[in-house]
Formats: sequence, structure tokens, C-alpha cells
Amino acid sequence: MTETVHIDLGDRSYPIVIAGGSMSLADTFAACPKAAQALIVSNETVAPLYAERLQRALSGRYPQVQVLQLPDGEVHKNWHTLQTIFDALLESGADRKTVLFALGGGVVGDMTGFAAASFMRGVPFVQVPTTLLSQVDSSVGGKTGINHPLGKNMIGAFYQPQLVVCDLDSLDTLPARELSAGLAEVIKYGPIADMAFMDWLEANMDALMARDKQALAHAVRRSCEIKADVVSKDEKEADLRAILNFGHTFGHAIEAGMGYGVWLHGEGVGAGMVMAAELSLRLGLVDWAFVQRLRALIERAGLPVQGAILDAHDNAGRYLQLMRLDKKSQAGAIRFVLIDSPGKAVVREAPDALVREVIDTCCAA
Amino acid sequence: MTETVHIDLGDRSYPIVIAGGSMSLADTFAACPKAAQALIVSNETVAPLYAERLQRALSGRYPQVQVLQLPDGEVHKNWHTLQTIFDALLESGADRKTVLFALGGGVVGDMTGFAAASFMRGVPFVQVPTTLLSQVDSSVGGKTGINHPLGKNMIGAFYQPQLVVCDLDSLDTLPARELSAGLAEVIKYGPIADMAFMDWLEANMDALMARDKQALAHAVRRSCEIKADVVSKDEKEADLRAILNFGHTFGHAIEAGMGYGVWLHGEGVGAGMVMAAELSLRLGLVDWAFVQRLRALIERAGLPVQGAILDAHDNAGRYLQLMRLDKKSQAGAIRFVLIDSPGKAVVREAPDALVREVIDTCCAA
Repeated sequence: MTETVHIDLGDRSYPIVIAGGSMSLADTFAACPKAAQALIVSNETVAPLYAERLQRALSGRYPQVQVLQLPDGEVHKNWHTLQTIFDALLESGADRKTVLFALGGGVVGDMTGFAAASFMRGVPFVQVPTTLLSQVDSSVGGKTGINHPLGKNMIGAFYQPQLVVCDLDSLDTLPARELSAGLAEVIKYGPIADMAFMDWLEANMDALMARDKQALAHAVRRSCEIKADVVSKDEKEADLRAILNFGHTFGHAIEAGMGYGVWLHGEGVGAGMVMAAELSLRLGLVDWAFVQRLRALIERAGLPVQGAILDAHDNAGRYLQLMRLDKKSQAGAIRFVLIDSPGKAVVREAPDALVREVIDTCCAA
Repeated sequence: MTETVHIDLGDRSYPIVIAGGSMSLADTFAACPKAAQALIVSNETVAPLYAERLQRALSGRYPQVQVLQLPDGEVHKNWHTLQTIFDALLESGADRKTVLFALGGGVVGDMTGFAAASFMRGVPFVQVPTTLLSQVDSSVGGKTGINHPLGKNMIGAFYQPQLVVCDLDSLDTLPARELSAGLAEVIKYGPIADMAFMDWLEANMDALMARDKQALAHAVRRSCEIKADVVSKDEKEADLRAILNFGHTFGHAIEAGMGYGVWLHGEGVGAGMVMAAELSLRLGLVDWAFVQRLRALIERAGLPVQGAILDAHDNAGRYLQLMRLDKKSQAGAIRFVLIDSPGKAVVREAPDALVREVIDTCCAA
């Protein structure tokens, strides 16, 4: 069974195809732009597992299909690795019609998307996300980019793919820790937008953890639908789209403070959602029962529910310092995504004293 | 007297303000987006002359206005220099509202524009071009980018500024050779689009060479209008926009063949326009009197009207080899921008024998 979610962005609209085995079928790519060549960008972990089947599916459409393997991991999401994509394109005689295929998780997708946005000022690209995280989050919405030594995702572009192919079979080989990290972004959609989905997640968390295909298909589809709905109303992140960063302000501080790669992004978001919920509680927006319910669901997904200690002497100060670098910050004021009431998010500032209290309560070594 | 040209690109429309002294006036920037800080990106040649007056004009609008000096020259139009812009932004706590001001010629404009397109996936930017070339050409149309070791302008974005400020006073300090190089791009607009403008240029070339402000104001305005008209019909360079490259196919071959920087871009375009006109003549499109007329005008602008000898043994062969690398070439066939009839350009191929004849006639050591 194939599920399709349509992302409506006018002349930059595209479909997300969700099905087991979809990347192996030539038909999946029947609407992709024609070109003399295609480049599959993947990494050393994913390419050995899936590059050949994707290459085979594309071979009827593109006379030349090359595969480029990037090193695996967030630490390589930088200019140096991006440059290897440009090198490969120029060395193989790529032109303005060459199509890039991002085969892998969020790091591969973000870098390949930014390479596509920038190469000759823009060539077409297709996302084939192979992790739960990238299927429900980074492949929807057109955010692409790389990290800067002073901040994550600081350099990039809004650039939409032609097509996103979520092959659920690729989740079979996903490490358990990464499955959990992906579930953090799935869980997020409940408290910010759809409490019925949160109910469904509570009823189906065991099935999701057991990688039941039907449950995964629903979770991916509903997550993409909610994100698509938000993104189509606010493509360039003027405001509304910021609610998708629920849990991310605290989470990014943890990721950056621990050194990228120590905590997975989804793990930071897991603990970060608990902290943002605690801050919402202290601002009188939600009650204690809601915070407990969310914490329990996050814990069942195998995720941390406490933040890390980033500084033994002034932990809260370190969090605040890191959070002021957040892209949502304005003139040094941190803008938190909070739960206004269950199922509805709000972006607002909060007194430092309350934020410190939350950090002191919610962190453990 | 202030002239204004409106670039019509829907929600990415922007005005070009043309006037002596405009960058010194706070009023010029009254419609710029507000922000806590602005960053003026310039180079070591232009910043000492103009950064302070621009900084003063912006100081009422932006609480913090910093200046970043890049090294001067095309050779620095690369990732390494771009990175220094990102570093400066992040070190000074820039956010998504921070406005970048490109103060300098085409290299500064291209790099600052790409930095603005990519920083946090897009911040506003304003062009303050200080060379004639950048006032009439590179600041109109939204092309931004950097060079790659394997090709010029290979990495970049289409990204529109909020405003372009052409301060004619900045042309007072422009070296004579660069004034002439800028005039090449001005002259170009006559034969491809507007013979009345060519008549005007013939009547006013002495005034332009003497840097008469009124003459320069008209030349800049009319050039921007013609380019704006072409670009608004073809923002992403599907086809029509290629006519703006009149003289560039031969010109790029000279630049590349001599080694970048030996001939200025505008000098290559000057000789290149004569060669393209000669080719148009040999194809029966224009008459000998038209070619002579164009050659005389180019010469009066202080520009070369003969191509360089790129190879003592097979000069024409070397030109052909270099021109086949042009981005307009398709499947090895060179596509020339030619004059179909005075005031109208056409993009087409030409027999190698005729091209060789033109090169043999038009080149001198």
C-alpha cells in the first residue's frame, strides 16, 4: 500500500511517497526531470545497503547514474564535505539539468539539498530518506544546509525537492537508538498540533518500537501531513513554522554543549520537549498532568527525559548562553516554542529566572 | 536629482536608486528592513574611501553597524573569503534580521549576496555598487556566487537584494581602466536592445569619459532599465537573458586564454563585441557601416577593439577550444550572441570557418 502526501507550495509543490520497497521501483521516479546524468549522494553506512537498488531503479531514466559516498555523521556536515559533492559534479561534467538524489538520513539530505540549491545556482534534487527522523522531519519543508563551527545549520537555503520517497523497508536496518531519535520528532507533532495523534501514539508506541510497518506508515504519513500543513502556510519560517521546533531550543543547547554527535538530535529533542513542557507549566500554560503524560510517552520511545549537565559550575548559564545563539533568538532574547494548551504551540520569551529553574530541575549527569 | 528604476519580480521586487551622494543620506535607506544590526561588507580598496560615510548614513537605523574588509580581487572570490563573512556575522551575534550591505564592485556584491542568501538560509541584503560595471550589470538580476577551482561562478544562488544604491560620486575614484571596462557593459545595451540609446552614447561619450554626473546618471539608468526588462522576463536564465552576454563569448575566451586578471572583464567584452559584430556581418545580419560605428564607439570608450593573440600557432583554434567551454554551449556547439539587426540580438550557432575568419581578422598582439 502506498500513501502519498502532497506538499502544496505553488510552482514548487512536490509529493511524498510512503511505501515499503518504493525506492526499488522505476515507476516511483517516473515524474522526475530527465537529464543526461544523475548523482546519488549517500554515505558509507547507507550506500552499501541501498545505493545499488536505487541505482538500478534509476538506470532506465538516466544514461549515467553515479554514486558518491560521504563520510557518515553530523560532524561531517560541513563545507569540506559539501565541496566533495561539487568536485564530483564538476569532474563528471554535470550540467544545469543533472539531478541529485539524497540517499540517507538528515545529514545527507541537508547537504545534498544545499549542494543542489547552490550548484550552478540550482539543479533539481530528490530526497530518499532512509531514517525515521529524516522521513518525518528533514525531508519535508525544503530546509537544506551545513553547520558552521559557531552554530548548527547556519549556512543553507530553502530549496524544495522534486519528490520525496520514504521507503519504509529502509527502517529495518536502522539502529534502535536512531529509531528512538526519529520517534522524538513524531511525538512532537501531538502536543503542538494534534492531541488525537498523541492518543494514537500512546496506543501504538509498542507497535512502533517493534517496527510494525502499518504503524510506521501511519506515523510517517500523519507527521508529514502536519508538517506539510504548517510549512505550506509559512514556507520561509516567518513565524508559524517555528512551532515545529518544539523541544529544539533546549535540545540544540544540549547537542552543542556536549559536542555534536554525543547526543543524537532526536535525543536532545526528547529531553528538550520535557524541558519546554516544564517551562510551559511554570508559565501557567499547561498542567502537571500534561507534562507527566508527555514525559511518559517520550520515555516509552526509548528517549532521555532529562537534560545533560553542560557545565559543572554554571549549568543554567551555559544553557542560556548557547540558547541565545539559536536562530529564533531576536536581539539576544531567546524565543521558546511552548505548549499554549495541549495541541497548540506558541512562540514566546520567558524570564531567565524561570528558565534557570527549569534547567536546574530537568538536568542530570 | 535622483533616478529610480523598479525591478519587477513580484514579491521579490526592489528599486535601484541612482544619484550622486546617495549612500551618504539616511533617507536613501528609509525603506530598508529594521534590525538590531547591519554588516557592511567591503574590500580593502573601497572600505577606506566609502565605508565611513555609509556607516554614518545607517547609524540612525541600525543600533550596531560593523564593517568587514575582504581582500580585493576576483582571485579571492572563493569559499575561504565567504567564510570570513559568516565568521564575522556569527561572532557579532547576527540574527535572521541582520541586514548585509555590499559596498564595492562585482566581487564584493556576488560574495555578499551569496552570504546573505545562505546565512541562516537567507537574510536581507542591499547592494551599494561602487564601480560602473557593478552599477550597470552585476547588481541587477540577483545572480550571486563564488568560484570553484574548476569553474567561475559555479556555486551560488539567485537571490534578490532589498535595494540597490548607485552612488555616482563613488565613480570619481574609479581608475580610468575600470571606468572603460564599465562602459563596455553600457555600450552593449545599445546594439542588443535600443539603438536610440546607442545614438545617445555616441553624442555623450566624451561627457561619460569626463565622468559628467548627469551623463553617467542617464547611462546607468538606461542600462539598468534594459537589463531589468530582460531579467524580469527571464529571472532564472532560461533563454532570453542570454542576450545580455553579447560580446561575452569571445570576451571570456580572451580572459581565460590570457589568464584571469590580465584583461579586465569589460576589456574582453569590448573586443568581444567587435568580434561578435564582425561575425554578424559575415552572416549577412548587419552591414559594414554598423560594425564600424560600434567599433568607433568602443574605441572612444578607451577599450580594445582587437582581440588578443592567445596562441601563436593556432590562434583561431585556441579561441574555438575555449569558447566550447562556455556555459551557453550545448553538446559542444558554441552559441553566439549576435546582432540580428541593429537593436535586436539573437542567439545562434555559426560555421567554424566563419568564426575562424573573424578571429584572424580581429586579433592583434
